[in-house]
Amino acid sequence: MRASKLTRERAVAAQRRPAGVLLSLVTIIAAPLTLSLCGLERLDAQEASPLAGFSPSASSRQVEIEQRLQSSISIERIREHLKWLSSRPHLPGSEGTRLTVEYLQEQLESFGIPTETVRYDAYLPAPVSVSLELVEPVLESISTTEDRIEEDPYTEVTDLHPGWSGYSPSGEATGQVVYGHFGSEDDLQRLVDLGIELEGKILLLRNFSTGEGRKVANAQRFGAAGVVLYTDPAEDGYPFGDVYPDGNWRPPSSIMRRSINFLPFGGDPLSPGWASKPGARRLQPEDVPLPRIPVLPVSYRSAERILSLLQGPVAPDDWQGALPLTYKIGPGPAKLRLRTEMDNRDRPMLNVLGRLEGATQPDQWVLLGNHHDAWIYGAGDPSSGTAALLELARVIASMAQEGIRPDRTLIFAFWDAEEMLLGGSTEWVEDHEEELLEKLVACINMDSAVFNPDRPLSVAAHPLLHELFRDASRQVPDPRTEKSTFDIWLDLQNRFRQVPGVDGWGEFFDPTRELSEPRIFESPYDDAAPFFYYLGLPASDMYYGADYGMYHSIYENFHWMETVVDPTFEYHGVMAQLQGLVALRLANATLLQLDFANEAHYWKLAYQDLHQVAEARDQVVPLLQQALQLLDSWEEEAEALELKMKLLLEDDLASVPSAQLVDLNQQLNRATRDFRRLEPHPEIPAQRNLFSGSSFDFENVSGGTLPGLRFALDRGDLARAESEAGLYVEALRRRLEGLRRIRSTVRALHSGERPLSEEVKQ
Amino acid sequence: MRASKLTRERAVAAQRRPAGVLLSLVTIIAAPLTLSLCGLERLDAQEASPLAGFSPSASSRQVEIEQRLQSSISIERIREHLKWLSSRPHLPGSEGTRLTVEYLQEQLESFGIPTETVRYDAYLPAPVSVSLELVEPVLESISTTEDRIEEDPYTEVTDLHPGWSGYSPSGEATGQVVYGHFGSEDDLQRLVDLGIELEGKILLLRNFSTGEGRKVANAQRFGAAGVVLYTDPAEDGYPFGDVYPDGNWRPPSSIMRRSINFLPFGGDPLSPGWASKPGARRLQPEDVPLPRIPVLPVSYRSAERILSLLQGPVAPDDWQGALPLTYKIGPGPAKLRLRTEMDNRDRPMLNVLGRLEGATQPDQWVLLGNHHDAWIYGAGDPSSGTAALLELARVIASMAQEGIRPDRTLIFAFWDAEEMLLGGSTEWVEDHEEELLEKLVACINMDSAVFNPDRPLSVAAHPLLHELFRDASRQVPDPRTEKSTFDIWLDLQNRFRQVPGVDGWGEFFDPTRELSEPRIFESPYDDAAPFFYYLGLPASDMYYGADYGMYHSIYENFHWMETVVDPTFEYHGVMAQLQGLVALRLANATLLQLDFANEAHYWKLAYQDLHQVAEARDQVVPLLQQALQLLDSWEEEAEALELKMKLLLEDDLASVPSAQLVDLNQQLNRATRDFRRLEPHPEIPAQRNLFSGSSFDFENVSGGTLPGLRFALDRGDLARAESEAGLYVEALRRRLEGLRRIRSTVRALHSGERPLSEEVKQ
Repeated sequence: MRASKLTRERAVAAQRRPAGVLLSLVTIIAAPLTLSLCGLERLDAQEASPLAGFSPSASSRQVEIEQRLQSSISIERIREHLKWLSSRPHLPGSEGTRLTVEYLQEQLESFGIPTETVRYDAYLPAPVSVSLELVEPVLESISTTEDRIEEDPYTEVTDLHPGWSGYSPSGEATGQVVYGHFGSEDDLQRLVDLGIELEGKILLLRNFSTGEGRKVANAQRFGAAGVVLYTDPAEDGYPFGDVYPDGNWRPPSSIMRRSINFLPFGGDPLSPGWASKPGARRLQPEDVPLPRIPVLPVSYRSAERILSLLQGPVAPDDWQGALPLTYKIGPGPAKLRLRTEMDNRDRPMLNVLGRLEGATQPDQWVLLGNHHDAWIYGAGDPSSGTAALLELARVIASMAQEGIRPDRTLIFAFWDAEEMLLGGSTEWVEDHEEELLEKLVACINMDSAVFNPDRPLSVAAHPLLHELFRDASRQVPDPRTEKSTFDIWLDLQNRFRQVPGVDGWGEFFDPTRELSEPRIFESPYDDAAPFFYYLGLPASDMYYGADYGMYHSIYENFHWMETVVDPTFEYHGVMAQLQGLVALRLANATLLQLDFANEAHYWKLAYQDLHQVAEARDQVVPLLQQALQLLDSWEEEAEALELKMKLLLEDDLASVPSAQLVDLNQQLNRATRDFRRLEPHPEIPAQRNLFSGSSFDFENVSGGTLPGLRFALDRGDLARAESEAGLYVEALRRRLEGLRRIRSTVRALHSGERPLSEEVKQ
Repeated sequence: MRASKLTRERAVAAQRRPAGVLLSLVTIIAAPLTLSLCGLERLDAQEASPLAGFSPSASSRQVEIEQRLQSSISIERIREHLKWLSSRPHLPGSEGTRLTVEYLQEQLESFGIPTETVRYDAYLPAPVSVSLELVEPVLESISTTEDRIEEDPYTEVTDLHPGWSGYSPSGEATGQVVYGHFGSEDDLQRLVDLGIELEGKILLLRNFSTGEGRKVANAQRFGAAGVVLYTDPAEDGYPFGDVYPDGNWRPPSSIMRRSINFLPFGGDPLSPGWASKPGARRLQPEDVPLPRIPVLPVSYRSAERILSLLQGPVAPDDWQGALPLTYKIGPGPAKLRLRTEMDNRDRPMLNVLGRLEGATQPDQWVLLGNHHDAWIYGAGDPSSGTAALLELARVIASMAQEGIRPDRTLIFAFWDAEEMLLGGSTEWVEDHEEELLEKLVACINMDSAVFNPDRPLSVAAHPLLHELFRDASRQVPDPRTEKSTFDIWLDLQNRFRQVPGVDGWGEFFDPTRELSEPRIFESPYDDAAPFFYYLGLPASDMYYGADYGMYHSIYENFHWMETVVDPTFEYHGVMAQLQGLVALRLANATLLQLDFANEAHYWKLAYQDLHQVAEARDQVVPLLQQALQLLDSWEEEAEALELKMKLLLEDDLASVPSAQLVDLNQQLNRATRDFRRLEPHPEIPAQRNLFSGSSFDFENVSGGTLPGLRFALDRGDLARAESEAGLYVEALRRRLEGLRRIRSTVRALHSGERPLSEEVKQ
């Protein structure tokens, strides 16, 4: 019903659509006639200004390619993929995953994409059984499973899928309960300051705000015997809208499962920093800081029962949640017995990698990623993205077979074990570090495609890629309005800018200010993380709507997707288009359009932020003074280069020999390596991106921007800060000189001179 | 148990108490020996610096008086008064009020205070019966009464006291329900913008944020057929702490009653601007804008039932409350039938006024006020204050009988019908306008003494009085710690500065900044209102803890006070001390210590605020430019005057003839009249204070600071703004010249010259 209503509105609206705002989704399946019509519309607009990074003739070709791409994506095929992929649980190492991997390989090969399945091993968790009992003041079992919902057939097996936390050890803990808010270090210290004993207690902690790994690491450090996690409706539940099955918000029995991880490295815990290919050297589990105390996630209904039996001080005002009771701290009288039996052991991780060789620059790679493992059915996370990427691969491959092959090589990557430890992607990155540093242009990762189209599209990307995403989104029509995805993205972000998503809004976001263009978070996560933090390369992730509602529960299934989230699958189509447009722009650009000026802007923000932090603590880092001048010069140089490249492109490059163009593109690509640490930081070796570090789960790592400097300043180690500042200044110089060299290459090409090849090749 | 623990702590602490921090409450009943001990402690401290406004000898005398006052206040007597006063409902015009008035008159006269009971008439509301029924989607009665609580004997009669709203008409309305948040104009406009029809609907509105009068006035203007009010737990209930009887927060069945009033004048609705003495001219009720649609307050349990039956759009995020459901807007399917039968008619209001003639300056009056009427038992509002003020009157009168009589005249005022319309106080002010403008120094009003000692003391006062309140609070020990009331006041305000009380934090409060001294709200309300807004005189109100919890419910009774709020009655003692100290400082000061510099500071804040508002709208008021220079000069002049007065006081005024001192004090007192409008504003005649207007309940009046100017600018009437600016500038000139004249008088007195009496008398 919703679809037909949309169709009618769209048909009426078609007459009014301004040129340049592209095809309606109604036309996506229809094809040829509409395509040519839309093509004409678009070409009119394009003649005035070619796509950024494209010469006029390349731009015309690219516009046609993109129209073809957008009109060829079949939401019906995405729906079928999703239905298949989410028809069974597919936890890493399970039979479901094996079947999924077969399906992915078969599908990719059926599209004509050469595909291999690559295995790495990892120490991976799985549950055997869990239980939670109140032993005081009453003896009572606390539910660890989710409610069956009559109309949702996927919930028939709730008993087989209790809540559990990845990497919780097997164990038993009995103790009085203390409510500890989000379990941040500040939260637990506040309890201690209030005179609350935490030793031997079971901490009841809310999800969100602080990574689960940090929560548990903090709980351990403060002496807790166990941790019970739950999602408070203040963060996800009825205050936001109807709960499932009536709406898209978390119902009372729903459990959010996540992995508990506070290792300084992603990937297999037993092979930190190297690839765990079968037979590779491995550490022993007991030598690695995995959680030592049992951890269990429960629903907010179960948490309400426990909270209702806590006495002691009333929790601070900002610790009160949205359950209908007075949150108290305890300890007790509620006393819990928590039992977890786990089967954590080595299991294979299976990445599926399809490769479409580039027509003219095969040694430059653009990666389109997504993971394929899920907590249970994973209809949102990740299978909505898996389904969309599969369909995108089909369309691109089919065009290639007709001769419209991307200039650069595309790699379609379906990773395993993201949920547990960003496993498959990290090991593959470790395995191919040198080659990726040589060849990879960018990793455009999807993760979940759609969770909630009533909440803003969320894109996290390296600052070099921001404008590219915005540009692409202008070209994707929103399914429910006459607006573009760009416009809806902006509207929804402004509407919800006081309500951060799970990943927040980035470091420098001011929620009080109206946005004039969509905000892109500057530090991606998910499987983009090893590319971004470890390799230091351009990477991104994206999903529509935040990780809320059914996220990581048994309700995150095909019935939910079909009845509540995206009944027409049009938003899956939006996401496939967006990932495809960004990847194909990068794959086909005449000159790689990397936004060095925006990158400089973010570095400046990071610098100012760090400067304020240091100033507030009276910390002086003399060497850092030099950075500001270099940042200004970089920004100017980037703008000058952009202008020069634009002029070169406008000449349509007829006079530029192709080899020199390839060379110039390689220079542009190599410039993105400027901010990778040459030597790893001894304490945070996985954080090799000088610009941004992940604070998500690592214990004792503040993360955020300029992580090495921040790490030193947080510890008050000014000598270390000075040497870190040296690395930054050196990198800034490298960047500035690099951009100057590229500009002189561009100038030479433009004037028809032969560039000084020695200089170019340096 | 709590009392004995406090006693022990205090006894231990006594050794460590610094000189100058006064007597412990333990000693209050003990008396003579302790008194002299504490007196010595204090005198040591006082020799170094006399009390502000007192000559050294007067200061020594005042210190003794204050010690005597503080040590004589009997918390046991306060307890007994409160028990008597709250033993029966005492709604204005009821038999309970008649008995209360007799008690007050008898008590005051038994203290030796000449007392009269003064009658005014007013159109006053009373309930006959109310009912609320769901008629769709189910037929069901919605409770309009509160739960009986086994251990609270006062709740045996809950059926006799349904929820009702003062000035609701009798009527019946049946309509679909629309949830309208706080019912502000913006809220209702937002509903209209969402396409929600309000005509003929029953609006379900939350208490707080906007005055009840405004809510109902808005509802009428938008066409609603009736209004149901409730207190959401997000504002008052379990998120803040245990609910009664376990704690001090609003339980699910509790109903908050308030008066619905949006008249431009306080007091009797039928005699706006003149005193309604028996036989006075009166308007007809139908000629006065009283509410036209039925209004009924219900509990949050009743509201939850109604909300659970609303569909339609999910309410905006910031409209969601703390009930465990998704708040939706409607309309319907819930449909309510609301019936109110009222007996609104003329009833007598009885003020009880005791008068203690001043010893040396009887024509300068200091008023100590409180009202005596209550919604039901009124154990907090107002009887905790009535009880404290009665005991304070006894102590002051008993000292007077021993010859320690205040220099200026004290008036102990117990007002009627505050709850309905600030009735008794407003009529008395209208009756005595000329005399009050001639003689009144200040109105120090108490209203409720104690609601919640775990929340900050709340004082709202004319800026001239702020420092006086802070000074006095330094001298009152906190019952539960070794700190002063000043310190606890500051601690609690900082702790709860993100959580505004019912009356907010004042216009210029920045909750992000740590306070260094207690914040006093610059605009008082309650029975201080006619003194402050209409007369434009220094006035204040005060209560401990905000109007939350049991406020205006049947649970606001003696059992609640004795078990939950103030079991030892020590905080009642704190409030009696504070009101007494402030009043006696004003009554005995050698030179009235009015803080003109602080007043200038607030005028500047108000000016800046208005300036920003005008600038944002591109409104230019040329005449206003002159104000800034005058404000600066005023501040400088005030500081210079303060210094001069200090020097004069230090000379102990031996050489100054008493008549000249009286004269100087009269000049100081008259200066406080500078900011009363000479002619009333035609549209907001009750707002004659140029500095501050009340926005609490009046429809279409923005209130806030500089109300006349703001009123003109809000309407975009720049000509009117210019003429208003003329009044402001004229008043600022008056102030500046007045202060200069006073300073020259002080200078002349100090140098032994005879002041120019013509100038002085002007």
